[in-house]
Amino acid sequence: MEIERKFLIDTLPENLSDYPYHQLEQGYLCTEPVVRIRRENDDYYLTYKSKGLMVREEYNLPLTKEAYEHLLPKIDGILISKKRYLIPLLENLTIELDIFEGKLAPLYLAEVEFDSEEAANAFIPPEWFGKDVTYSSEYHNITLSRKKL
Amino acid sequence: MEIERKFLIDTLPENLSDYPYHQLEQGYLCTEPVVRIRRENDDYYLTYKSKGLMVREEYNLPLTKEAYEHLLPKIDGILISKKRYLIPLLENLTIELDIFEGKLAPLYLAEVEFDSEEAANAFIPPEWFGKDVTYSSEYHNITLSRKKL
Repeated sequence: MEIERKFLIDTLPENLSDYPYHQLEQGYLCTEPVVRIRRENDDYYLTYKSKGLMVREEYNLPLTKEAYEHLLPKIDGILISKKRYLIPLLENLTIELDIFEGKLAPLYLAEVEFDSEEAANAFIPPEWFGKDVTYSSEYHNITLSRKKL
Repeated sequence: MEIERKFLIDTLPENLSDYPYHQLEQGYLCTEPVVRIRRENDDYYLTYKSKGLMVREEYNLPLTKEAYEHLLPKIDGILISKKRYLIPLLENLTIELDIFEGKLAPLYLAEVEFDSEEAANAFIPPEWFGKDVTYSSEYHNITLSRKKL
């Protein structure tokens, strides 16, 4: 299980260009179970995620660029396109800062993953973090993909 | 690896209704790698098959009826719909007799799977089997799904 907190960001850090980023795209063919296509830089995947109380399965299956582009017109809603910056914090924590592009711009979201619920609850966000949206489904990728524009 | 021979059938056996059958449907979202949706009676699957010399992967991942129906309009070409009869033969062999329905009717194909190439080559087909199409790609499901009607 992932334990993470999620925050809206209003103002980007000034030294953002010092950090590495991945170019991400993802779109949904189906949401229950999740059948998703995803680009990570020059790698392409079909992801399947089943929901279940006992068994939750996740598979990341490789696609060629051609297969990804063939499946692209079949997605529901919006293709989510974002740059994901990885910014190290104290105590082995890393901020994943997503800068949304295209139809979802300008939207910035930061996620931090923790080893335990205690660590998550004790977390004091940096000055530049905005509203805590950990418990809001509004900023889930599936919700964003369905956004009316 | 599957070792099988495939035959066209012109005339169906008279006692066909004595045998059990599955109702099958399948359609392709992508062909390289294969991303396929499939219905087997009341079970629904997403199938992923990669081509590779060293590693060929195949995953059959469960879908709900709703997810299957959501993905149905996204397929390329024709939805293949067929009844698959299972007819036992001598020596633990089974004929899989596919009676295609809908846009591909009337087409009947029989497949027999073998333990070895020797057994496959030694196989003497029953009287009612027609042309051997083992080496023809014309009757592959992917080819049939692309048929211009």
